[in-house]
Amino acid sequence: MASTSFLCPKHTTLFLPTHQLSNNSVSNLTDLFVRFPNSGSVSFRSDYVSSLSHVRPKRKQLRVCANSAAQVMDQSPSKMGSMVRTIVKVDLGDRSYPIYIGSGLLDQHELLQKHVHGKRVLVVTNTTIAPLYLDKVVTALSDGNPNVTVDSVILPDGEQFKNMDTLMKVFDKAIESRLDRRCTFVALGGGVIGDMCGFAAASFLRGVNFIQIPTTVMAQVDSSVGGKTGINHRLGKNLIGAFYQPQCVLIDTNTLNTLPERELASGLAEVIKYGLIRDADFFKWQEKNMSALLARDPSALAYAIKRSCENKAEVVSLDEKESGVRATLNLGHTFGHAIETSYGYGQWLHGEAIAAGMVMAVDMSYRLGWIDDSIVNRVHKILQEAKLPTAPPEMMTVEMFKSVMAVDKKVADGLLRLILLKGPLGNCVFTGDYDRKALDETLQAFCKS
Amino acid sequence: MASTSFLCPKHTTLFLPTHQLSNNSVSNLTDLFVRFPNSGSVSFRSDYVSSLSHVRPKRKQLRVCANSAAQVMDQSPSKMGSMVRTIVKVDLGDRSYPIYIGSGLLDQHELLQKHVHGKRVLVVTNTTIAPLYLDKVVTALSDGNPNVTVDSVILPDGEQFKNMDTLMKVFDKAIESRLDRRCTFVALGGGVIGDMCGFAAASFLRGVNFIQIPTTVMAQVDSSVGGKTGINHRLGKNLIGAFYQPQCVLIDTNTLNTLPERELASGLAEVIKYGLIRDADFFKWQEKNMSALLARDPSALAYAIKRSCENKAEVVSLDEKESGVRATLNLGHTFGHAIETSYGYGQWLHGEAIAAGMVMAVDMSYRLGWIDDSIVNRVHKILQEAKLPTAPPEMMTVEMFKSVMAVDKKVADGLLRLILLKGPLGNCVFTGDYDRKALDETLQAFCKS
Repeated sequence: MASTSFLCPKHTTLFLPTHQLSNNSVSNLTDLFVRFPNSGSVSFRSDYVSSLSHVRPKRKQLRVCANSAAQVMDQSPSKMGSMVRTIVKVDLGDRSYPIYIGSGLLDQHELLQKHVHGKRVLVVTNTTIAPLYLDKVVTALSDGNPNVTVDSVILPDGEQFKNMDTLMKVFDKAIESRLDRRCTFVALGGGVIGDMCGFAAASFLRGVNFIQIPTTVMAQVDSSVGGKTGINHRLGKNLIGAFYQPQCVLIDTNTLNTLPERELASGLAEVIKYGLIRDADFFKWQEKNMSALLARDPSALAYAIKRSCENKAEVVSLDEKESGVRATLNLGHTFGHAIETSYGYGQWLHGEAIAAGMVMAVDMSYRLGWIDDSIVNRVHKILQEAKLPTAPPEMMTVEMFKSVMAVDKKVADGLLRLILLKGPLGNCVFTGDYDRKALDETLQAFCKS
Repeated sequence: MASTSFLCPKHTTLFLPTHQLSNNSVSNLTDLFVRFPNSGSVSFRSDYVSSLSHVRPKRKQLRVCANSAAQVMDQSPSKMGSMVRTIVKVDLGDRSYPIYIGSGLLDQHELLQKHVHGKRVLVVTNTTIAPLYLDKVVTALSDGNPNVTVDSVILPDGEQFKNMDTLMKVFDKAIESRLDRRCTFVALGGGVIGDMCGFAAASFLRGVNFIQIPTTVMAQVDSSVGGKTGINHRLGKNLIGAFYQPQCVLIDTNTLNTLPERELASGLAEVIKYGLIRDADFFKWQEKNMSALLARDPSALAYAIKRSCENKAEVVSLDEKESGVRATLNLGHTFGHAIETSYGYGQWLHGEAIAAGMVMAVDMSYRLGWIDDSIVNRVHKILQEAKLPTAPPEMMTVEMFKSVMAVDKKVADGLLRLILLKGPLGNCVFTGDYDRKALDETLQAFCKS
């Protein structure tokens, strides 16, 4: 059981994927915790850190507006590196927070430390990310800060674990560690970790401080903005959760160096979405720069992340609780959630399901006569270039789609509202006012039965 | 399994107390649901309802201030009845809501209906309250309102069921019933139902509308004000939850006619608390009127509930998230929670544990020299008169108290803060600045080991 291949810092609880455990057997749970002594396995390069301590990076406050792509692409990777830190501000009144974007930010310890409240921190991460970045984050939190104690809990990796059983392990750890209201929860990982850690932070002692360190493109461009947290129910995605804003989001683009190709592409699905629903210039930039993004050009990635966060921050500022315009961020998600729910969480990545879902929403928009075929073609082309699916899995049936779509959060008083493209590129609507026939035709076109 | 002694209205799910079920076996759960056809067992008196339809009761908006007891006690029960509806407003900006207090309010259907959002309602109640009031509430919600569909879920009764497993049954029912964001959850029952239904409403689809119909004195004077919702963890009470405000609270004092004596006394413990921490006149009124309260004099009960809600509303308006003065509402609760957690939830009622806890807090305040012995004596006397305990159960040890108190939500950076009386009757402090010796002496005085 203790034959894990990585070293854990002090106060770490490794949660083995024993999801067979019921909540009623929590009294036996401590037997399954594997505790490691402090390994001293600090993995960052000390020369890099010491050089940074002499360089106070100039903070650059960006307004949320459409910058030209050239502005960023002209910058060399070194300029986009540790010297430049971009800040996107999410403007939500007294719940406003900054998103820091840059490479090497995890080595700038003061950045994280200034957002920690209280003396106790719980890092929530998973078995994939812990061996890569947990030590680094623990050091960033505690270096030169002897009053702070950092605990951590390592969850199994995957959407299939985004459930109440796994969430309870976070509460168990927080309570066993005797954390109090003045503690801070830190989410270190992808969207699943961010959603679960955020909901745990929202609910532990009725709400504690929360910091996000997203390590996937998907989490950086999507869940890092807007405070949606939650878990899945066996009948649907994200049905249980809270709107809960973090103190800050820290995006160290260096963490993308270890991201698998399929995960990278999955995140790009959401990037493409922003272009489609509200930012034609950004979409055109993506058409030109897709190969740079796939090759992980740091400048291209930083720009795509920044522009995505800015787009989302603008929408969320207008509609925090998703009563209107915020719903447009869910282009392709109603179809996509049906795929994820029916196919089983974790079979397809979220962005893969959303890519297929976007193709279906675009198909339906075209059937309604709301967009012309050039948009349909461009969507197919860019998704194919990003190595993303353009159709749902073969096992999906019309009935499966309809069954899951009936419990979608966007159903209001029994009417399913959808996000559909309408007009020139970069325009969409959120509406329940569409011809039901077009929906049926789209479902039939993409399903064998 | 279906041999229950009461009839359930349509759309009811009776949840049998099968807490052996793990979350992993939810797929088998539907086998355990017992569905009843509409029984038509409407239990209110139709003559009463029809007479009400001609009488529009005059709404009386009360300011939150100390009214003299005589003012209410002079009113005859008939005046305090269906003709008079008291409203206490909880002032929380855009989360403000009214508390309606009066007898027969469940027969005034328009009162409840005007606070329902959307077309779908889920009533959350328990096996004790359902046979008494579920039909009445379903009728109040749907009478003359054919667009509204009312579902209900009946949970097992008791603090020992205030956990994640039971909470999941509410989510299961809401999701299986395909409720959407525009639905309304209605809590019908005591504090446990209010806390669980409130947390479910806060978390279902990241937040839906919520109405409270408290049916115990405890729930009416405590959990109906301030939006604290949540569930217990095996290591402590209310450790997982949310601050979430209802649309309204409807207190029909007629529901107290069916309340067991021990439950009545339990609720009075919180009433006594308001006098002790901030309202000496109210405490003196209670000293004079305790026998009337125990005899369920409607005027006395209505006044005690109103004055308690006003006191709590005033405190909560000043400090919604309990960063300061709100904590004073927890007089006796740190000791009391330790009793409930160690003794097992459900062995003692919440108010019984709080009564013993208040005696301990008062004892400690006296040891610190902060109050004189006349207050100690008056607290003992009024609790005895209310048939409440004045000491913890014999099995409690110093170690049990210390162990649970260490994870109390009022611990900040490792320091346990307590609510203690200080000065003349009606004054208290919330502080971590006290002589530890006094705490040790109090624990030793009340524990055999």
